[in-house]
Amino acid sequence: MTEYFPDVKKIAFEGADSKNPLAFKHYNADEVVMGKTMKDHLRFAVCYWHTFKGLGSDPFGGPTILREYNNAGDEMAVAEATMDAAFEFFTKLGVGYWCFHDRDIAPEADNLAETNKRLDKIVAKAKQLQADTGMKLLWGTTNAFSHRRFMAGAGTNPSAAVFAYAASQIKKAIEVTHELGGEGYVFWGGREGYDTLLNTDMKRELDHLAKLLQMAVDHKKKIGFTGQFLIEPKPKEPTTHQYDFDANTCLAFLRANGLDKDFKMNIEANHATLAMHTFQHELQVSVDNGVLGSVDANRGDMLLGWDTDQFPTNIYDTTLAMYTILNAGGLTTGGGLNFDAKLRRQSIEPNDLFHGHIGGMDAFARGLKIAAKMIEDGRFAAAVKERYATWDSGIGADIEAGRVGFEELEKYTLKNGEPEIKSGRQEMLENILNEYIR
Amino acid sequence: MTEYFPDVKKIAFEGADSKNPLAFKHYNADEVVMGKTMKDHLRFAVCYWHTFKGLGSDPFGGPTILREYNNAGDEMAVAEATMDAAFEFFTKLGVGYWCFHDRDIAPEADNLAETNKRLDKIVAKAKQLQADTGMKLLWGTTNAFSHRRFMAGAGTNPSAAVFAYAASQIKKAIEVTHELGGEGYVFWGGREGYDTLLNTDMKRELDHLAKLLQMAVDHKKKIGFTGQFLIEPKPKEPTTHQYDFDANTCLAFLRANGLDKDFKMNIEANHATLAMHTFQHELQVSVDNGVLGSVDANRGDMLLGWDTDQFPTNIYDTTLAMYTILNAGGLTTGGGLNFDAKLRRQSIEPNDLFHGHIGGMDAFARGLKIAAKMIEDGRFAAAVKERYATWDSGIGADIEAGRVGFEELEKYTLKNGEPEIKSGRQEMLENILNEYIR
Amino acid sequence: MTEYFPDVKKIAFEGADSKNPLAFKHYNADEVVMGKTMKDHLRFAVCYWHTFKGLGSDPFGGPTILREYNNAGDEMAVAEATMDAAFEFFTKLGVGYWCFHDRDIAPEADNLAETNKRLDKIVAKAKQLQADTGMKLLWGTTNAFSHRRFMAGAGTNPSAAVFAYAASQIKKAIEVTHELGGEGYVFWGGREGYDTLLNTDMKRELDHLAKLLQMAVDHKKKIGFTGQFLIEPKPKEPTTHQYDFDANTCLAFLRANGLDKDFKMNIEANHATLAMHTFQHELQVSVDNGVLGSVDANRGDMLLGWDTDQFPTNIYDTTLAMYTILNAGGLTTGGGLNFDAKLRRQSIEPNDLFHGHIGGMDAFARGLKIAAKMIEDGRFAAAVKERYATWDSGIGADIEAGRVGFEELEKYTLKNGEPEIKSGRQEMLENILNEYIR
Amino acid sequence: MTEYFPDVKKIAFEGADSKNPLAFKHYNADEVVMGKTMKDHLRFAVCYWHTFKGLGSDPFGGPTILREYNNAGDEMAVAEATMDAAFEFFTKLGVGYWCFHDRDIAPEADNLAETNKRLDKIVAKAKQLQADTGMKLLWGTTNAFSHRRFMAGAGTNPSAAVFAYAASQIKKAIEVTHELGGEGYVFWGGREGYDTLLNTDMKRELDHLAKLLQMAVDHKKKIGFTGQFLIEPKPKEPTTHQYDFDANTCLAFLRANGLDKDFKMNIEANHATLAMHTFQHELQVSVDNGVLGSVDANRGDMLLGWDTDQFPTNIYDTTLAMYTILNAGGLTTGGGLNFDAKLRRQSIEPNDLFHGHIGGMDAFARGLKIAAKMIEDGRFAAAVKERYATWDSGIGADIEAGRVGFEELEKYTLKNGEPEIKSGRQEMLENILNEYIR
Repeated sequence: MTEYFPDVKKIAFEGADSKNPLAFKHYNADEVVMGKTMKDHLRFAVCYWHTFKGLGSDPFGGPTILREYNNAGDEMAVAEATMDAAFEFFTKLGVGYWCFHDRDIAPEADNLAETNKRLDKIVAKAKQLQADTGMKLLWGTTNAFSHRRFMAGAGTNPSAAVFAYAASQIKKAIEVTHELGGEGYVFWGGREGYDTLLNTDMKRELDHLAKLLQMAVDHKKKIGFTGQFLIEPKPKEPTTHQYDFDANTCLAFLRANGLDKDFKMNIEANHATLAMHTFQHELQVSVDNGVLGSVDANRGDMLLGWDTDQFPTNIYDTTLAMYTILNAGGLTTGGGLNFDAKLRRQSIEPNDLFHGHIGGMDAFARGLKIAAKMIEDGRFAAAVKERYATWDSGIGADIEAGRVGFEELEKYTLKNGEPEIKSGRQEMLENILNEYIR
Repeated sequence: MTEYFPDVKKIAFEGADSKNPLAFKHYNADEVVMGKTMKDHLRFAVCYWHTFKGLGSDPFGGPTILREYNNAGDEMAVAEATMDAAFEFFTKLGVGYWCFHDRDIAPEADNLAETNKRLDKIVAKAKQLQADTGMKLLWGTTNAFSHRRFMAGAGTNPSAAVFAYAASQIKKAIEVTHELGGEGYVFWGGREGYDTLLNTDMKRELDHLAKLLQMAVDHKKKIGFTGQFLIEPKPKEPTTHQYDFDANTCLAFLRANGLDKDFKMNIEANHATLAMHTFQHELQVSVDNGVLGSVDANRGDMLLGWDTDQFPTNIYDTTLAMYTILNAGGLTTGGGLNFDAKLRRQSIEPNDLFHGHIGGMDAFARGLKIAAKMIEDGRFAAAVKERYATWDSGIGADIEAGRVGFEELEKYTLKNGEPEIKSGRQEMLENILNEYIR
Repeated sequence: MTEYFPDVKKIAFEGADSKNPLAFKHYNADEVVMGKTMKDHLRFAVCYWHTFKGLGSDPFGGPTILREYNNAGDEMAVAEATMDAAFEFFTKLGVGYWCFHDRDIAPEADNLAETNKRLDKIVAKAKQLQADTGMKLLWGTTNAFSHRRFMAGAGTNPSAAVFAYAASQIKKAIEVTHELGGEGYVFWGGREGYDTLLNTDMKRELDHLAKLLQMAVDHKKKIGFTGQFLIEPKPKEPTTHQYDFDANTCLAFLRANGLDKDFKMNIEANHATLAMHTFQHELQVSVDNGVLGSVDANRGDMLLGWDTDQFPTNIYDTTLAMYTILNAGGLTTGGGLNFDAKLRRQSIEPNDLFHGHIGGMDAFARGLKIAAKMIEDGRFAAAVKERYATWDSGIGADIEAGRVGFEELEKYTLKNGEPEIKSGRQEMLENILNEYIR
Repeated sequence: MTEYFPDVKKIAFEGADSKNPLAFKHYNADEVVMGKTMKDHLRFAVCYWHTFKGLGSDPFGGPTILREYNNAGDEMAVAEATMDAAFEFFTKLGVGYWCFHDRDIAPEADNLAETNKRLDKIVAKAKQLQADTGMKLLWGTTNAFSHRRFMAGAGTNPSAAVFAYAASQIKKAIEVTHELGGEGYVFWGGREGYDTLLNTDMKRELDHLAKLLQMAVDHKKKIGFTGQFLIEPKPKEPTTHQYDFDANTCLAFLRANGLDKDFKMNIEANHATLAMHTFQHELQVSVDNGVLGSVDANRGDMLLGWDTDQFPTNIYDTTLAMYTILNAGGLTTGGGLNFDAKLRRQSIEPNDLFHGHIGGMDAFARGLKIAAKMIEDGRFAAAVKERYATWDSGIGADIEAGRVGFEELEKYTLKNGEPEIKSGRQEMLENILNEYIR
């Protein structure tokens, strides 16, 4: 069988002092942190689209990256070769999960029936490769945004026929995800949004989207798929205004449509910052509302206004993300750290693909270790607890318990006078964070 | 009685060709548009804080604007003189409504009891002036963010005693709003938000905020206040992350806490753009969810990252805002166009205060006339209706009625093949908009 | 000969009340404004890349727009058909100028010699079409950013061989621009910038860029090309940091390298706002430094962080741009209003191409008429003159003439005391602007 | 003598494992790094304005911070007490330098003569305290932006009388800086910019600014002040458009006015990011142009659009800054790391002032140690050198030496064909950076 990355052996853990760019410095799969292996904590996944189908093109230029598997022959031969290369990569990298869109793995044919046959063929191959390697599918999803038929959206398209097409495609994608034992299924509304309100009936579009999601919930039950449904918020790009702006916007929509028990969030770092939130903020909002599902682990460039999908390397970000995740009990079924990240356009060598993923895995492994230390030490938790101490008894407890209203609080204030205030100690806490960042 | 703007007479409507800076070119209060007078459509309000208490200071320098009423003597004498000047201004400008924070109109004393007495005294004066002039109160609100006790928030303060203080203050502010016949009461969470998650329990803070709002709802019923409660979204500033980020975030929160029937939105143009939405977007989201309450009519600078609170002068913005508002049936009780706008720091002459408001009123009057023409012509509505025509019958109607699911849609698609797609015609629609902008 | 836009006749001027989407409402080519025809003032150009080569693809999806000329056969047949379609479009639209990159009009072959031959063949055809139609070339330019060889820049590439390739291509592009009688030649540094300083020697790269520009100046003289060299600033995209950030950055670079007499600016509206400047600002900076050359007339979306290249339709923007341009004496050789604008991805019908350009031409025609009125009335000029009146005599004139220094000014201040300050009257001036916007 | 920070002793170095918030973990003043002590590398300075005059007010609320020295009595008594407190703070913190604006240290009186007398009195006290403690003045500057007379700028004011006033004030500020042995003098054009072009003659304003700077250069020579003149770029805030947008904009201006040999840059991290540059970018631009003077060491919040002036704690930022500075030979006369940073509004305790500064000093000490290691290892330098290797000989060297032009390069390309391209290896380099961040 063709080896697509012949120069690379299985990536090994060599420790923090190694200078080998093709070794882990921090990710040590079986090392136990807070009672669980790194592998089980982090549940890393490789994404199929950027990693195998992304070739460096951007709005100002074509592909820069040449991959051997793209020379395999006709479209389906290329699809099969790509799948072989992918599993070779997964195995050498040592991750446990992968993720894909339907159209990443199998090319469209002339009609939907034919397209679905192609998909089935590739899925059978993937299933075999999963069995051979032990790799698992974190989640599947549908690409209902690249083809021109979806230029005005899928579930929110002005045309009912396009909606029907999208629904058919999603039906199949859920079925093949189920077939591959996927732990989750993601809805990213690629073009669910609008470019101008002058031609848009936003309310009608969102009502249609709710219908689509309800159909998906119904179909899931019908076929016995027990994976987690996930919505992935993004504020803009490609449309001027994406409907799933951020976690709270998704929650407002789901609650209005009685769908909030059926979906969790797939939080992407770069989408969070495009929405002017920190990554940690979007994670925490999801945790607080009981809907943290999975994570697209990448990073954006805070000085650029589009989705750069860079590999995550900022230790502050990975630390705070893992701190929030660990405090919430960790990632469970359907949840993992999926590298929705792509190589820079100039990173044209096969090794660059390994560098990107190794760097991301090490960054999250460090984040995990540091966050675990922060939790074990308890300094931050103690500071927060102390800051809210007045709510644990007395008038604070009365308020929380609903025992008092405006009249009682007015009496309390008239009697007690000016409240004492305390420093928020932000500088000290930021310094303590730096003590942990090593 | 002292006249504070002696050089200005009542502002008259002189028509579009007038070059008199102290005349209306478009706002003609009694002119009827779509069956209602401009005055009743627009329900303009002057805000007390910027207009009478704002003196041009900014983070880099002190006040630049000198106002005669600030020389009236002690704090309470100044407060009374300011109220006289305000009603002189309202009358000369010819608006029907005003808005205030409790602390705008009466200065704090040494303790809450004394402060409340001061407030009562000024409220009595305002009530008399309302009776004398026919002015009405659009809405009142509380300033629970300027005093140092509120540095870490009011309803979301880490201290229960500060929460109690804020509750006491809000209780009183609702009562005086009721006393003055206010049509609404606004909650703008000045410092309801966080600066760093390192010291913040976001979930607990938001639970407290929900408690506060529930207490306000209870108290409102108790005292028989029938005005509209309004929440004013803002994404950031002064805190790094404001909890009421935008309309959808507020809806998510209200729905989670069973408060969504009790509150509508007070949408501010500048807050919308700080949240990376258009003004029209936030209005439309509110309309679509049945929660458009009132409007803070100002504008931001799209190249600056803070709340500039400029007077609204962009005809595109006022046209699209009025188009959305008219399509939704117009503003009702508790709703109006409140100029939450301040003079530029260099606009130090009393006439500038008139220029700002006249410009804003004319801009919205033009917007109203243009939007009415757009609706009467029906070109945009027809284009939208046609774009969604496939939903009015056949498979589209079946989907909307819930008569079909994934299986039926898959069959439909397999049978019907590739859907036809149509141009979104954005350029043509934008050109048509320019036909109306005259 | 094939007609590519058979449903469209030559676009006529029908006046402001026309509702014909395929007619000009304001652009009346031969109408005289301030002593010159609209045509001569505005010097509109159509760009080849977006208008004929742009097919609606974006980072999230492929082409949506189908054009008849793309079915003409092999690459060169398509190139010729496209050129025919382009001149049909130019003629029906009624513009006088066009602009192109070398690679827009002729596809690359296997090597540079062959590529240049292809280019020569198409240029000969274009020359004939120019002669047949009276169309003129506003400017030509090189695409040295789309091919993978230029992934790390052209003149600033880390490889000297790529620099040499770029130089060869620019040489040829200047020559064919000369051959076609182009009035100017533009340098837009597509990938002249960096993605990370970790792998970049910025100083060395900029020294190389200066070398390249000097070679171009030398070659221009050698071949007798008298067109204007233009630099087009852009702050970011595709690289993280583009070297030609804005007009001032270009000026700093040109002055440091003794090139400031040889280059003017090609100011693009969308690039200005990406650099956090207004369009008018970048025009005014260029005027004040004597380097306003030409204009890329488009608009961005102020809520999006990438180059949206929309057709210009905002009357405020076109008015203020034309006000600055008229005050500077208008556009001259090498200068025009080039529509560097593309259709929205959903605007898939041929008519949309006309709508976009008609809307842009009308918007600038209105801007021209309004700006002319503003100048003829002189209200803004008078306000500015009065604001700076203290500089026209006395101590102000002494300072401007260099007759005084710190000591004299200290004496002046000690004697004259606190200076009088006056309102900047921004609100009044903004209201006056609205009086003109009709 | 009153002790203002009685609870704090001199801050000691305790090493990375200390958990004492009032100790240095990394800054060890006399530790030698690359042949020089940390103290001499870093040249830390405390700023007077934020640290002693900043009391937590913001646009939405008044002061929160109570300082004992503000209770000292009348204005001048407070000024003297503040100076005592400042030197106590400097000494306990263990920095070597301070910086101030004229109006920070002495309050304005009723006229300039009287104001200057007050300034002289406080300067005499500061001189004595410098002598007593060994503290030195890094630089002085003028506050010509807070007083209402400067609302429209100082050197760019529309009024010549205000220009004269500003000149008088700057004259005096330079003189007192000289008196105190200041190593530099900073020009930050607080309100040198515009709010709207409708009322602004930008060219005339900038010509006046050039005159002012030339007068300053003349006066400096006259009085024998040999300190470094520094310009501090900032893109916006308080004005809508600040003239000194960024380093390149300042260079364009200085070069146009023959002032480029007389000024260097004072680069502020937060101003860099407000201009959409990285901190390192602005440092590198300054280094490459030979104008890196000094540094305002703070940080902004990348999700907020205003100057937050936070203490620098991000190790990536301090590392890359120190890497650029060390590669440039380090900071020299007039240059240092000045903490132009302020406490968060909730950080109301005196200890917070120490936490902020300690955190900033430790962050830069770490940055210094890490950057030194990066330089000593040479991995980055080698990667960059290799990337540009084609310029060191052959055609690259010919180009750099000016030995070839377009014709030779065309021949070269025709002969050599398609250039080889290499990976930019960004992911690998970012991973290596993370190896150093410990």
